Amino acid sequence: MKVSLLYSGGKDSSLAAWMLRRLGYEVKLVTVSFGYADFAHYARESALAIAGDGFPRRGLHQLHIAALEALAKESEAIADGTRRDDRVPMPTLSEVQSIEQRYRVAYIAPLRGFGAASIKNLTYRIFNIEYAPSEASKSADYEKEVRAYLKDKGYDVNKIFPSHVQSRVIGYKGENDE
Amino acid sequence: MKVSLLYSGGKDSSLAAWMLRRLGYEVKLVTVSFGYADFAHYARESALAIAGDGFPRRGLHQLHIAALEALAKESEAIADGTRRDDRVPMPTLSEVQSIEQRYRVAYIAPLRGFGAASIKNLTYRIFNIEYAPSEASKSADYEKEVRAYLKDKGYDVNKIFPSHVQSRVIGYKGENDE
Repeated sequence: MKVSLLYSGGKDSSLAAWMLRRLGYEVKLVTVSFGYADFAHYARESALAIAGDGFPRRGLHQLHIAALEALAKESEAIADGTRRDDRVPMPTLSEVQSIEQRYRVAYIAPLRGFGAASIKNLTYRIFNIEYAPSEASKSADYEKEVRAYLKDKGYDVNKIFPSHVQSRVIGYKGENDE
Repeated sequence: MKVSLLYSGGKDSSLAAWMLRRLGYEVKLVTVSFGYADFAHYARESALAIAGDGFPRRGLHQLHIAALEALAKESEAIADGTRRDDRVPMPTLSEVQSIEQRYRVAYIAPLRGFGAASIKNLTYRIFNIEYAPSEASKSADYEKEVRAYLKDKGYDVNKIFPSHVQSRVIGYKGENDE
């Protein structure tokens, strides 16, 4: 079973990749960026919407859906690192079912059934992680590109995006079932 | 990491057990029945509520929550076989967080991020399954006990519970990552 995973290098999408692999999936990591397929159009649109209402959550949600749709066009199954306790709006059941029906794909969110504490346990058991403020992070989240794009356009991105810590997986502790 | 899984022998809770094991959890299968802890009281109450409004979904939902709470009293982490596309009402986020806070446990629903098609794929890859109408099924779902209890009390259970097919795992196809 093949699955294309929306991948940023952060701990959530890395954990999602590990889980899917453990469950027997053949996982393709896809980092969707402004240069990916016809994603740039949506990304610019969402970036300007974010700048317009100064409220990044809605725009990032739209971007997430657009990224899943870009992935869905070329995959049998798609996945992301969405967690049960995510603070950002996650794909709703109706959005997910709409993507599944329109693109004839299966959508999998392997972390959706896990709460914050369980994710933390799994993550520390499996990975070595580096934390950095989101403006300095090396992870490939499209939030970064949105930020760069808006900065180019002359917006004060630090006013729009609240500063938060982003994670990047820098090592794997190996298979350890205990 | 230890987790107690609400287990019926059906394909969903069996798949949940397999998944948790693959992810490195030490899984304890617990079949909650009328005889389990102080569960009988809730079970009888829900059974009569079901008989009262002739609408099993609400009562079975209450029972599910009561079963999770019974499990939570003696576990660090609890889990069930709830799926994204389940037709019966599943524990809501606020119910889950309430249980987690009151009992200081983590609740895990490993199948929650998987749609019907993905569950089906995984299930057929892993298990040999037997299907039977729910009234004849050998699985240990507490719905069966509720049914038996109401029959004893003189109710026509076939009018209350719509006939449906239940599954039981009768074999394991072995580790196969392809």
